[in-house]
Amino acid sequence: MRGTVMYGAGDVRIENVADATIVEPTDAILRVTRACICGSDLWPYKDLTPDDPPRVMGHEAIGVVEDVGAEVRNVKKGDFVIMPFAFSDGTCEFCEEGLNTSCLHGGFFGNPQIAGAQAEAVRIPQAEGTLYAVPTSEDPAMLGSLLTLSDVMGTGYHAALMAAVGEGDRVAVVGDGAVGLCGVIAAKLLGAEQIIIMGRHAGRLELAKDYGATDVVSERGEEAVERVREITGGSGVHSVLECVGSEQSMLTSMQIVRPGGAVGRVGVPHYAALPETANMFFKNVTVSGGPAPVRAYIEELLPLVMDGEIEPGRVFDRTVVLDGVPDGYRAMNDREALKVMIEP
Amino acid sequence: MRGTVMYGAGDVRIENVADATIVEPTDAILRVTRACICGSDLWPYKDLTPDDPPRVMGHEAIGVVEDVGAEVRNVKKGDFVIMPFAFSDGTCEFCEEGLNTSCLHGGFFGNPQIAGAQAEAVRIPQAEGTLYAVPTSEDPAMLGSLLTLSDVMGTGYHAALMAAVGEGDRVAVVGDGAVGLCGVIAAKLLGAEQIIIMGRHAGRLELAKDYGATDVVSERGEEAVERVREITGGSGVHSVLECVGSEQSMLTSMQIVRPGGAVGRVGVPHYAALPETANMFFKNVTVSGGPAPVRAYIEELLPLVMDGEIEPGRVFDRTVVLDGVPDGYRAMNDREALKVMIEP
Repeated sequence: MRGTVMYGAGDVRIENVADATIVEPTDAILRVTRACICGSDLWPYKDLTPDDPPRVMGHEAIGVVEDVGAEVRNVKKGDFVIMPFAFSDGTCEFCEEGLNTSCLHGGFFGNPQIAGAQAEAVRIPQAEGTLYAVPTSEDPAMLGSLLTLSDVMGTGYHAALMAAVGEGDRVAVVGDGAVGLCGVIAAKLLGAEQIIIMGRHAGRLELAKDYGATDVVSERGEEAVERVREITGGSGVHSVLECVGSEQSMLTSMQIVRPGGAVGRVGVPHYAALPETANMFFKNVTVSGGPAPVRAYIEELLPLVMDGEIEPGRVFDRTVVLDGVPDGYRAMNDREALKVMIEP
Repeated sequence: MRGTVMYGAGDVRIENVADATIVEPTDAILRVTRACICGSDLWPYKDLTPDDPPRVMGHEAIGVVEDVGAEVRNVKKGDFVIMPFAFSDGTCEFCEEGLNTSCLHGGFFGNPQIAGAQAEAVRIPQAEGTLYAVPTSEDPAMLGSLLTLSDVMGTGYHAALMAAVGEGDRVAVVGDGAVGLCGVIAAKLLGAEQIIIMGRHAGRLELAKDYGATDVVSERGEEAVERVREITGGSGVHSVLECVGSEQSMLTSMQIVRPGGAVGRVGVPHYAALPETANMFFKNVTVSGGPAPVRAYIEELLPLVMDGEIEPGRVFDRTVVLDGVPDGYRAMNDREALKVMIEP
């Protein structure tokens, strides 16, 4: 079958890769209906070296179950399902608490060990715990929003929950990528009164406003911090959704959060240490977050998608076939595209 | 009047200091009935240099109001009150939210700017917001527990709340000082099922068990981490109360917390950066805490003290008059005394 292989920074190729096959009796094979490129895929696209093992990329997909292992009962051939970016058994102590990304028998897609979903098909370990069957036919208008439930919408929601967004709160969302935009949706769902989107890309900021952002801050560094203080009455925001993962974005997050507030971080950290840790202590600031247990959030978010109450699928602004994936990476890396959907 | 002045590491003297007098119309003067030495006073006792300005020490006291400024109405001469370690106006946005340690017009006692309470009397800025009148006569048996409400009991309670201790949780308390012991009381109040006290001092560990600790871990470093994992079924604790503030204790805290768990830190940080921040992210660990808003907690904790439901005053194992304070510092620093009460 054909799949997307990353060999090094900027080096993405569409190739024949090993067919997805049942290895463990708990596996399933998913025929990919739609996959996509994630902002986090751009990190290796920037810094993967030729010494690192190549990897079949992709950790977000929806699709149809093509085959299941002998021990898989609750997922059937023909089911239309969402594949969360992490696989999990659904039964361990962490899964039972809703933290599937810490599953004792879990793992992640799209790395040198586990092939990813930017391909015609993908092997799903722990299929029963991982896949979520969608009780709908494949409505083309709905595919994008359903696909976001495999990562970005659940991740934005996680950021908002970990930032303890509550009714009437002032919230800042750092980063206007797909996760940040979904964070705006989530902050609004949780009742935030003021939602500040921090970013610089006109089209994305427009979408953020459609999603519920009340203010835009496009300054950077010190100036951005000043601006947020200004529009929040001086003391900053109750909650920050850190949706980038760079040192600068984390620094800004720690500087705009008000005493007693919280930073929910979901951007994979590309910094050695948390900045401002002394201030963090003296201001009683909470830092929380990590890989989002999106599997656990599908239950809550899917009905909102099905009712049309939220439309996270609007973050997709380009669709490519497999051969177009390398150019999709380039376009996202150049900030020419917000989020690229793949129709294998 | 006489007070305790610290000039440098190990150099504590009892001297004549400036009388406590009304400076602002919002001030009160407190005649100190009991004060005490705090574990955090041992930090300057270790590292204050002769180049640092000397300071009148002490931030914990109970006493009788001797005089009030023209604008002080709710606090009267003769009131028997608790003095929290931070002063606060009680009316700003942070005080209203219960975060008095971030009061917009607040500050702390016992530093070069604001004289402390290890003295015959102390000036209380923002007296209306700061002092808490105790509706009781000065019952000698109760004085110790009331005094803990000015800091250590409220601080231990804050650690437990920030560590999100809940019904049935597994909890570790790092540090067997007075705050750690009060943390044990708090963890039990909040319904923890397993309470592991981490420390090495026989007498303190006995008191911890009286307070509700179910397990003792006296190992250090890697061995301590191993031991906690062993007695928690492999994955660590839901909540860690970090009650020391050293790099080692924070490292241990981050290593024994389970995925999805929380570290509530109240030990003033003596480290440059949070350790294990990458693990913190990938494990979805929350870090919270800071200077405890003990003023806000008196309301909840005082009835428990008055009913005898909690006895935090048992942390005092020595009482000195003012002349005995320098030796009290020495005794606490040598771990000969747990917590020293001062009867000026």
